[in-house]
Amino acid sequence: MRLATILVSLPAVLALWPQPSSLSLGKGTLWIEENIKFEIENPEAWKRRSGTPVGLPTDLEIIENSIKTTKNAIFQQNFVPWKFHPRNASYEPPMSPKQTISKVSIRQATSKSKNPPTENKSMDEYYALSVTANGDVEISSSTGIGILRALTTMSQLFYSHTKGGKYTPFAPVVVRDSPKFEHRGLNLDVARNYYPVRSITHLIDTMSTNKLNKLHLHITDSQSWPLEIPSLPDLAAKGAYSPGLVYTPNDIREIQLHGALRGVDVFLEIDMPGHTSSIYYAYPELISSFNVQPEWTSFALEPPSGTLKLNSSKVDTFLEKVLADLSPRISPYTNYFHTGGDEVSQSAYLRDETVKTSEQLKLRPHMARFIKRNHDQLRKAGLTPIVWQEMLTEWMLPMEKDVVVQAWQGGSAVNLITQQGHKAIAGNQENWYLDCGQGDWLNPSGGKNSYPFTGCSPRKNWRMVYTYDPLDQVDAKNHHLVIGGEAHIWSEQIDHINMDPVVWPRASAAAEVLWSGPRDANGKDRDIQEAAIRLSEFRERMVAMGVMAEPIQMPFCLQEPHQCDG
Amino acid sequence: MRLATILVSLPAVLALWPQPSSLSLGKGTLWIEENIKFEIENPEAWKRRSGTPVGLPTDLEIIENSIKTTKNAIFQQNFVPWKFHPRNASYEPPMSPKQTISKVSIRQATSKSKNPPTENKSMDEYYALSVTANGDVEISSSTGIGILRALTTMSQLFYSHTKGGKYTPFAPVVVRDSPKFEHRGLNLDVARNYYPVRSITHLIDTMSTNKLNKLHLHITDSQSWPLEIPSLPDLAAKGAYSPGLVYTPNDIREIQLHGALRGVDVFLEIDMPGHTSSIYYAYPELISSFNVQPEWTSFALEPPSGTLKLNSSKVDTFLEKVLADLSPRISPYTNYFHTGGDEVSQSAYLRDETVKTSEQLKLRPHMARFIKRNHDQLRKAGLTPIVWQEMLTEWMLPMEKDVVVQAWQGGSAVNLITQQGHKAIAGNQENWYLDCGQGDWLNPSGGKNSYPFTGCSPRKNWRMVYTYDPLDQVDAKNHHLVIGGEAHIWSEQIDHINMDPVVWPRASAAAEVLWSGPRDANGKDRDIQEAAIRLSEFRERMVAMGVMAEPIQMPFCLQEPHQCDG
Repeated sequence: MRLATILVSLPAVLALWPQPSSLSLGKGTLWIEENIKFEIENPEAWKRRSGTPVGLPTDLEIIENSIKTTKNAIFQQNFVPWKFHPRNASYEPPMSPKQTISKVSIRQATSKSKNPPTENKSMDEYYALSVTANGDVEISSSTGIGILRALTTMSQLFYSHTKGGKYTPFAPVVVRDSPKFEHRGLNLDVARNYYPVRSITHLIDTMSTNKLNKLHLHITDSQSWPLEIPSLPDLAAKGAYSPGLVYTPNDIREIQLHGALRGVDVFLEIDMPGHTSSIYYAYPELISSFNVQPEWTSFALEPPSGTLKLNSSKVDTFLEKVLADLSPRISPYTNYFHTGGDEVSQSAYLRDETVKTSEQLKLRPHMARFIKRNHDQLRKAGLTPIVWQEMLTEWMLPMEKDVVVQAWQGGSAVNLITQQGHKAIAGNQENWYLDCGQGDWLNPSGGKNSYPFTGCSPRKNWRMVYTYDPLDQVDAKNHHLVIGGEAHIWSEQIDHINMDPVVWPRASAAAEVLWSGPRDANGKDRDIQEAAIRLSEFRERMVAMGVMAEPIQMPFCLQEPHQCDG
Repeated sequence: MRLATILVSLPAVLALWPQPSSLSLGKGTLWIEENIKFEIENPEAWKRRSGTPVGLPTDLEIIENSIKTTKNAIFQQNFVPWKFHPRNASYEPPMSPKQTISKVSIRQATSKSKNPPTENKSMDEYYALSVTANGDVEISSSTGIGILRALTTMSQLFYSHTKGGKYTPFAPVVVRDSPKFEHRGLNLDVARNYYPVRSITHLIDTMSTNKLNKLHLHITDSQSWPLEIPSLPDLAAKGAYSPGLVYTPNDIREIQLHGALRGVDVFLEIDMPGHTSSIYYAYPELISSFNVQPEWTSFALEPPSGTLKLNSSKVDTFLEKVLADLSPRISPYTNYFHTGGDEVSQSAYLRDETVKTSEQLKLRPHMARFIKRNHDQLRKAGLTPIVWQEMLTEWMLPMEKDVVVQAWQGGSAVNLITQQGHKAIAGNQENWYLDCGQGDWLNPSGGKNSYPFTGCSPRKNWRMVYTYDPLDQVDAKNHHLVIGGEAHIWSEQIDHINMDPVVWPRASAAAEVLWSGPRDANGKDRDIQEAAIRLSEFRERMVAMGVMAEPIQMPFCLQEPHQCDG
């Protein structure tokens, strides 16, 4: 029998999230004052606009914005870590003498990443951070994004003291860090429910704190078309849920620029040829099998049914116009464009007079043509296409090897994608669907006894998210083709009001898998019990920055380790 | 095949929640202006302090406060009901001519309730509300609480117009309404996680909007003792999670008074003899089997184990002091005090030197004495005891018939309680545990393969909450003993940050069952498809008042009925 009333604190543990590749720390206390200087060595060297021409902020702008965010995180957010020390323990450093951090030096250095990104050198995220015992902080990276990542880590070193002031009890600190995967994303469905721009930039801020770097906006779907296309004004005017609920070109630019400053690449998905019924409101002639009721289940997985006609010159002209309008506006900010391709209903093509068949063999050449046309146009605009896995796993379409394929059915799909020589974005509805477990949103028609009410249950507990390996089932020789993964926020029962607690901290569990890898330095699966406390501390930091993240354990379980092991 | 692009609005449906007993309405539009007069006829008649002596607000104070809340709900909260009309339909009334509500008359009347409350006449909630076609509003009830309920209903008649102003499209309106059950509650666990006072008053406000009237504060538990008892200052000073995380006498008074003004009776539970380990931090001699680790599962259902000794004069003296300190402060505001009694671990008494046995037969007389002592003291203080079902269903204790027994295992327990002649508060972990479905909060120790991560899955979807009948399995002759029910908010993975979306609108489903009954006027189970849209509208009203309630269906499913039937 072990008694829990230990009145002196256990050694403090530094709870960085995601865990850096290499970390060493001490037990010295350093304070930091609001007038701290962040000195950028040779600022001229950071003025390049890396890679892409206009639009994107310079490295210097990214760094200056990050310094502002970091100061805000350290000085404005109030995080006192009482939950992570034994009850009634005295864990805070004395108020004097005070050794204070003198300055933060930021300098450019050659990357030492073992895993440099394949897509874009300006996204190299390797960084080094050191805090000496006497208070010198040095940060280096080859890119502005790398400095941003370092500053994000730095902000997690500090706590609020109940008597005032901010301190770290971990000096000296040395961190060398770079991500395991270059594509670490969230997929947000802003079509089934509309998310105000501010809620999307709020999500980007939280992603940046989590070192996530890809926001995939699933921006149109059968239920609504909120994307304003100025050359086709009726599209959003009639297809949005309500006249005001649209994303204007300015909104898209604001979101992408906000992302660029926070190290989050924002790209768009127009899901097609399925998931397009909302086009019907403006252009009924382009859609087959629109909103068949009540027998919608024969034509779609969700109401309303409907699909773009597959062999229609009107559809071609329409899509050419959409992409021509959109591409030049978004390509300054991202390399990617997602053309969807999931959950195509073959029976919906029986009613499509341009193909009049539901046989896959007969539909396939049309589908191949449809996809290729879109992709060729995107390539000319400098964008790399992404598609959902079904284009390979169900339709077995021939596609050029630049096409990135996104899986949502886990390891076997990721393996197949990479076997075909495509880059893969991993994902798994069993682990990384954050929307599951709220129960069914469809109304049952069979009365009380037909209610299982489980939907895609169970809710994916953070540990279920945390234990998914993007390389699961993938042949070792193809590991290099798995560029990362995404967790999914499908919005049947989520909108901006409940987004935060649905997403956080469970998406943080995915963020650590993608940044740090699913195994520790010794090749072992990461320790759930250690992670539970560290993730809980990170949750408190998110709450302090205004994110309504849910708690994963009660304070009793966190005040001392191993009190809540099952 | 039915097409959904109907460009004229369907007849508007009035979405009151909970559904009133009797309702008739028209199709006339009335506007309401901010300078509207609420005229209280004969205010002197409302000045009585109904029933309980000091502390409680007068009926007049309740009414005046409700008028303020109602004006705020109508004029400050911006709810435009676009989600509940077909896409692109024009559903708003023209801006002129404007027929405006002239005044709201409030008067005292004899109750016509078929179901007057047994506990306290001042809680008679029957009310009548009428709005004439030319804009006279009349509200009547025999009590201040009844007027409050009427005003709550009235505020749900109005919408914001996108061009400015507030209107109702339902005039004339006649409502006659009273609740099916007199005890309509939520049980909030503020011990496993601490909830700031402001988050509790926020919960009370939302409860009031839902016509819920009982807030059961589960205010102490094994994990923490946040309740300050001035005569035993160490109790909270050492047993709270952290020094500041306590409820002072002023806090309790503020919460109870806030409740009284909003028609919500706030009562406290000190759960005992189990669920008391947190007393150990201040008074170790009172607790047996404290925080046995790692084999806690032999002594408790959750860590930390520990129980008040069962036959100890020190424990008796301690509890006498606690109740003597607390009772006079809380009894002006409530008739109830909950003494717990759930999940007692018999094995924890093997180590209790005052009884030294785990045999129920030998423990029972001690338990009976323990309970009776507490209850006798509470009765003398004018408080009616409540206990958890186990005291009857497992311990089969003889208790006086004034003791109200609370079930958490559903119909068979409720039936047994009422067969024993006790009043019952219904509850069912299968339907009314709002905390379930987040996955396990205990850390598994068996590695990846031991992870089901389901906890008390699944999450109780709103339909699961909505289809629970408090009278389920209860002999008809005992129905009158079921005074109502409570939904439960256990806080292993809930705190004030994620409370709103966990609780709302699912607790609203329970609120309608308890106010309106689980069956409609024709005795049929309520219609899920109708309720889904009405509850969604009520959710939007809650969001407009600042409650982060989750959506239950996407707008596509709400813009026209039956588009999302499964």
